[in-house]
Order: sequence, then structure tokens, then C-alpha cells
Amino acid sequence: MTKEQEGLRYRRTQSVTRAEEIKAFNIKVRYSQPDKPCHKPRDSLFSWSSKFNNFTGFINWAFLLLSIGSVRLLLENFIKYGIRIDPLQWIYVITGFNDGGSGHPAVALILYSFVPITTCLMVEKGLAVKIISNIAGMITHIINLVVLILLPMIVIHVKEGFNLVGASVVTSYYTVLFLKMWSYIQVNLWCRTAHQRKNSMRRSSISFTTLLKSSENTTDTSSEVLGKQEKEIVQYPDNLNFRDMFYFLCAPTLCYELNFPRTGRIRKRFLMKRIFEVVAGTQIILCLIQQYIIPSIINSLIPFSNMDITQTTERLLKLAIPNHLTWLIFFYITFHSYFNLIGELLQFGDRNFYSDWWNANNIDTFWRSWNLPVHRWALRHLYLPIVEMGFSKTMGFLSVFFISAFFHEYMVSVPLKTYKIWAFTGMMGQLPLSTFANYVEKRFGPRWGNIIVWSSLILGQPLCIMMYYHDYVVTHYGESLLEEYGRL
Amino acid sequence: MTKEQEGLRYRRTQSVTRAEEIKAFNIKVRYSQPDKPCHKPRDSLFSWSSKFNNFTGFINWAFLLLSIGSVRLLLENFIKYGIRIDPLQWIYVITGFNDGGSGHPAVALILYSFVPITTCLMVEKGLAVKIISNIAGMITHIINLVVLILLPMIVIHVKEGFNLVGASVVTSYYTVLFLKMWSYIQVNLWCRTAHQRKNSMRRSSISFTTLLKSSENTTDTSSEVLGKQEKEIVQYPDNLNFRDMFYFLCAPTLCYELNFPRTGRIRKRFLMKRIFEVVAGTQIILCLIQQYIIPSIINSLIPFSNMDITQTTERLLKLAIPNHLTWLIFFYITFHSYFNLIGELLQFGDRNFYSDWWNANNIDTFWRSWNLPVHRWALRHLYLPIVEMGFSKTMGFLSVFFISAFFHEYMVSVPLKTYKIWAFTGMMGQLPLSTFANYVEKRFGPRWGNIIVWSSLILGQPLCIMMYYHDYVVTHYGESLLEEYGRL
Repeated sequence: MTKEQEGLRYRRTQSVTRAEEIKAFNIKVRYSQPDKPCHKPRDSLFSWSSKFNNFTGFINWAFLLLSIGSVRLLLENFIKYGIRIDPLQWIYVITGFNDGGSGHPAVALILYSFVPITTCLMVEKGLAVKIISNIAGMITHIINLVVLILLPMIVIHVKEGFNLVGASVVTSYYTVLFLKMWSYIQVNLWCRTAHQRKNSMRRSSISFTTLLKSSENTTDTSSEVLGKQEKEIVQYPDNLNFRDMFYFLCAPTLCYELNFPRTGRIRKRFLMKRIFEVVAGTQIILCLIQQYIIPSIINSLIPFSNMDITQTTERLLKLAIPNHLTWLIFFYITFHSYFNLIGELLQFGDRNFYSDWWNANNIDTFWRSWNLPVHRWALRHLYLPIVEMGFSKTMGFLSVFFISAFFHEYMVSVPLKTYKIWAFTGMMGQLPLSTFANYVEKRFGPRWGNIIVWSSLILGQPLCIMMYYHDYVVTHYGESLLEEYGRL
Repeated sequence: MTKEQEGLRYRRTQSVTRAEEIKAFNIKVRYSQPDKPCHKPRDSLFSWSSKFNNFTGFINWAFLLLSIGSVRLLLENFIKYGIRIDPLQWIYVITGFNDGGSGHPAVALILYSFVPITTCLMVEKGLAVKIISNIAGMITHIINLVVLILLPMIVIHVKEGFNLVGASVVTSYYTVLFLKMWSYIQVNLWCRTAHQRKNSMRRSSISFTTLLKSSENTTDTSSEVLGKQEKEIVQYPDNLNFRDMFYFLCAPTLCYELNFPRTGRIRKRFLMKRIFEVVAGTQIILCLIQQYIIPSIINSLIPFSNMDITQTTERLLKLAIPNHLTWLIFFYITFHSYFNLIGELLQFGDRNFYSDWWNANNIDTFWRSWNLPVHRWALRHLYLPIVEMGFSKTMGFLSVFFISAFFHEYMVSVPLKTYKIWAFTGMMGQLPLSTFANYVEKRFGPRWGNIIVWSSLILGQPLCIMMYYHDYVVTHYGESLLEEYGRL
């Protein structure tokens, strides 16, 4: 059998070689003809059989078409609306100057925040020197945090004279403060527990500690270094002062620790670049909002109310692109320029504010990598404590998810004073979307997962914005205004 | 000196190691603290110092934004113009049915082309059997070719009843025929010269040939194969028949040779796919033209006449994208689907109809690679003969360039009956553009060269189209129509 097969294979090989010989000879004869042959058997590059796959030029093509499309939209917009950019209007909006000028409630609320900050520090100091019992301290902290988060809600709802921008700044500021203080309290609790355990151990069994120390393989040099280092490193109760707390409150992180990594010096050139980016980026965002987003939203109002699907989709897509560009610039100037600027000024060492979310192949990865300060906070102060308390991982994940959805809603609904739950719904929608994206990633490959992430980012936001704007106008100006705006 | 330097280096290395030791120890101590540190010194990914460069996700982003923009334009177009696609209108345009129906002059002209084809073959046969002298034969060929290229020009100009599509088909057909017949005549000339030289050599020195043959290291087997092969391969005067000539005229190449490479069989699946692509692609092109290009061109007329730069640019960019898409689809269905379809039917082996022009880093490379049949013709039948005749390479290059510019102008101006030289100017503009692209490629890298190639492709064509359309309308319908169209 095997020999026969071998023979067959041999004969086949022979015949192939023979055929190739004839072919080669054929070509030789053909090329020796006087008609200067210029054709040879070949496949077209687009045919699968050609195995050609270098289409890098089409990447340049895509970016070029995108630029051309943007320039055209820019021109179309200027022809249609003229120049709408008005720096004065922005000064009015930010300062609330034209709203009747009843003081600056936003500034007052921000200044007031020193009260809960001081309260928090005082309670910690009391706990450290054991003037306040653990339970009383924790209750005070919780009340302090709840008041902190409810205060802007109530003040913005009750008091007149808040404009949208002022209210947004206040809610963002209080959200960040809430997360930072939570971290501060929790880290101090960890330290206090460890400190007390150490002290009680020291008191009860000094001999044991000495024994333990001698058993360690520490040379003289390293114990000398240890002594030096222990002086440089801040230990528990020494950190409880205003200087340390304000450094943390200003630092571009939500996770407190006693000894932040620090850089050696402030790089002047780096600082200048970041300042320029923040200033220029903010201007570009303001221009985009005035020139593109506001007209698009206003124009979307009528089709959106009438549930005209074709026109609504067209408006949604028209809104999607400037809105997405605004978001991208916002991301860059906040997470790169601004945080690096603050980090450089404070000589804060850890600049890992974002990961490569643009390559994310599923929704989970995107949410884990686009906002690292929040992600790190959620992991360290919510997920891990819950898991360590004995709950399941799903429980931990859902807690993080709900807190996140709550704060998204908080930062949008409170300034708009419309207690609809579009942002919350949007966050909840991430769950089925994530399942879908995971399925697509597994079925069609990582590239399609990435495309779904980008799609949700590009199309999800403008949908929420249109819904909120629609509700805002209907609630605050009544149906009559809908018709008036329709004429624009 | 060297020892001192070495000592310095040693000390420096030592100190670095020492610093690293302290640093490592520092980190160890810091991580042993009870505050669960989560920060470490890191750079942001967008900072140069991070050395991060994986931005592949943005490629998906670009293609996604492009798709979203296209879908929006589609919707906007439908909202603005409704559905303009009208298959009946296309039948009218192609057949010339609504133009008064004075017969089908385009079909008549195409049928007439058998006269010059037959003339050409008869002259070649006459030359082969030496009924006609070489000089008389060449003069007849030249007259035949000149008449061939002038005929459509005169008929279309003089005779009424030609529509744009019919006239375009006729000029394209005659251009291709001209190039093919040029190649046919030249190759037969080469063969005849070689044949005559061989015959005269045989007659004069049979003994010498025998001597030469015996000196060659040919075994019996290979000379036997040679004998077989010579039977299979068509030799000079045997090729002069209608069957061979029509195969060449139908084959997807402009370069004649006596023995084209052939495939073994017709792949049914492959053929079906190509037929589907040709049918579907043609429909898409027709839809794009009716729905996008025609309204855009009509709307561009007023701003273009008034020299309103902002509006003209906006119109130009609006026209650029559907026009470019049409060109891309046209390229694919012509150079891939249609030529492969014909090649498959004729079992024509060489399917190398285009190279990877999309990766071209300069204008020259683009022109050399997008249309390989024409490029191969120009090289084999114009450039090389000119260089072989003793002229410089620049002379050869310029000849190719002028002939190419002439035929571009011919295929556009004759059907439009507007003897402006925009297409010729466009081709001439490739020369300074090529110099510029070469400079950019050397100065900024190949990527920017590629971007210039794409830009000239995307923006150059619609500019020419707008110029021709403007002239066409002004010439044929007068200034009064300009105003009427402006109201659309």
C-alpha cells in the first residue's frame, strides 16, 4: 500500500515537474518570438487569489475625505448661519451677568464647600486622638457626605439666578469633592486600624517584635536606609493637616494616599504647552457649540417632536459629528492637557489619566480605560471593599455601575432642572450593548467590537442631548416656543 | 586621562545603581504602608515621553465617521430633492430615444468601424505576401488611422441626433480601436522584419545555421519538445486572419502579441460574480449621478458664474465626494469586474489591469499604475520605440504625455462639442503637480506624497467637470438658462 502510494506520489511529482518544465520551456520559446510579448498569466490585485493586501493608501484616503467633508460643512454652516461666535455672550453665560445679577450663587456654593472639608478633617483629627468614638465619627462623616451631595441639588432647585454653566460647574465640583472625601475617609480608616493594631501589638509583645526583626535578613545598610526612609515617608496621624488635605483635593486623582509619587521639578516648556492647549482647546469647543451644536439642536426640535423619523435621523447624524468632535477635544484638554497641567504644577508623578480606550474592542474595556481616575476610585473604594466584605463580584460590579449611573444623572439633571432619567437610561443601556459588543467581537473579530464602541460613543451622546434639550425647552418655555423655534 | 574617565564612569554607574536601589527600596516601603497606594510615576499616553503609538482604533473611527457622514448626506439629499432616480430616463439617454429618434448614429458609427479594421488586415496580408511595398503599406496604415480618429469628431460635430452618452461611447470605442490597431501594425512590422531577416539568413547561410545549432547544448528530448512547441506557437504570417485579429480587438489589452497567455478553463463562479458586479455597479453609478451629481452641478452654476469663492468652494467640495465615489466604483467595475469578465470569457491569462495606485506616493507612480493597459501600450509602442530611435528619454516621456493629454481631451471635448481645453490643461497641470508632490514626498515623507495624489484625484476631477458643464450650458442654452436653473 505504502509503496504504491509512494510510487503514485513520485509519478505525480515527476509529472508536475515535467509540466513545469514544458511550461518554462514554453515561456522561453514565446519570449524568443519577434513580437516582444509583454503579457504573462497574472491575477488582478482585487482577486482573492492574488493574495495582495496592502491597502494602506486607503487610510490616507479616509482621513482626507473626512477633512474635505468637514471643510465643506464648515463653509455650508457659515453660508447658512453667518458667524455666530460671540465671545461676549460667553462671558455673560459663564458669569451669569445677564441673568439679573443676583450675586454669584455658584461661587458662593463653591466657597461654602470649605465647611464640609473642614468638618471632615476635624472629625478625622478627633478620631485619631480618640476624642470621638469610631461610630460617632462614621455617622458624622456619612451625614457630612449626604449633605454635601444634596446641597447643590436643593440650592439649584430652590434659588433663582443659576445659569446652566454655573450649575454644571457646581455639580461637577461637588461630585469630585464627594468622591475625594470618600477616599480620604476610607484611607484614613485603613491607616487608623493598622496603626491601632500595631500599637496594641507593640504594647502587648515587644519581645515578639524584636524576635521577628532579628529573624529578617536585613543588613546594617538597609536598616540605615529604612530609618532614613521612614523619616521621609509620612506616617498615619501626621498626614491629618490642611496642607496635606488640600494637596490631595487639588491633585488630579480621586484616590487618596499618604505619599503620592512626586516629580523632581516643574518642566516649564511642558507647562507652557499644556496651558496653551487648555486655552486654545476651550476656545475651539466654545466655537463649535455656538456655531454648530446649538443651531443643530434647535433645528432638531420640530422633527423630534413630530416623530418624523427621516428628518430626526438626519438631524441626529448632523448633530453627531460636531458633538463628537467637541467630546474628543473636551477629552483631550481635560484628561491630557488640564490634568497634566495641574500634575506638573503640583509635581504629581502619576500621569496615567487615561488608557488607550480608542483601541477598546468592547464596551467594558472602554469604560475601564477612558477615565482612569474614576475607574481607579471605583475599583479601590467600592468594588474591592464590597468583594472583601464577602459579597460576590457581580454585586461589586453592579454597585460601581449604579453609582456611576447616578452621578451621570446627577451632573446632567441637576443643572438642567429636568428630572428625567435619560442619562441614567443611557448608562443602563450600556449593559445590553456590552453583551451585544462582546458577541460581535467574538463572532466578527476585534475590529467590529471597536466599531461598535465608537458607534455608541458617536451616536449615543447626541441622542441623549436631543432628548434632554427637547424636555428642557418643553418644560421651561412651553409648547408655544416649539413653534417659534421652528421658524429659525 | 582614560583611567580618570573610567573612574568617573564607574562612580557614576555606582551612584545610579545606588539611586535605583534607594528608589526600589522607597517603593517597597511605600507599598508596605497601610494606605494601599495605587499611584506610581507614569507619563500620559499622548505625551511623547510615553513612547505609546498604537492608534489603530482611530482608523476604524475615521471609516465610521465617513459612513455616518455619507448616510446623513444621503438623507439630506432625499429630504431636499426627493427620489430622482428614474430608470426610464436612462433608457432614453442611452438609446437616444427622446432626441427625435433619427436612427442610431452611434450604433452606425460603431458598425462602420469594421471598414478600417478590414482595411488594416488586408494591408497587412498584402505586406506579408509582398503584393504591397513597405512604404505604400505604411502610408495606407497612417491614412487609415488618421481617418479613424477624425471620423467620430466630424460625424458628431456635423450630424444632429447624437446624445452625450452615445457620443461618449463612440469616442471611447474609437480611441481604444486606434491604440489597438497601432499596436497590431507595429507588432506585425517587427515580425515581418524578423521574418525577412531570418529568411534571407536561411537562404544565404544554411551551413552557418547548422553549425550554430550543433554548437548549442540541446539534447534530443528538448529539440523534440521544441518541435512540438513550434507547432503550438503561432508564427508570423499565420496570425494574419480575422479570428486572431478579433480576439485581440476583444481582449482586455491594448498590446498585440501573437501568442497571448491563456487560462485552462472558464471559472463559472468567478464569471457570475463579475457579471453581478458589472450590473450592480452600473446601477449604483447611475443612481449617484442622477441623485447627487446632477443637482450639485446645476446648483454650482450660479456661484461659479458669479465667481463667488466661498459658495463655489462649498459646491466644489459637495460635488467632490459623490463624484469621487462614482470614479472609484467606475474604476472597480471597469478595471476589475468588466476586464476580468471579458478576460474570463476569452480565457485571457494576464489579468494585471491595475497596480496598487492607491498606495502611490507621487503623481508619476499613480499615472504609471492606475491604468496598466494604457501604460503598457505607451511604454511598448511609444516610449521604447522613440528611445530606440535615438531620441532622449525626456523626448519619449513628453510624447507619451502629449498623446495621453490629447486622448483625454478627445474623449471629453468631442461628445460635449465644446472645444475648450480644460482636460488638456488638467493633464498639463500634472507636470508641476508631480514636481510639487515629489518635493513634498522627499521633505515630509511618503504619507504626504500619497495624500497629494488623493487630493488631486478627489478635487481635480470635479473642478474640470464644473468648468465643462458651465461652458456646455452657456454655449448650448445661452445665458438666459443660467437664471432659470438658478431657481432650482
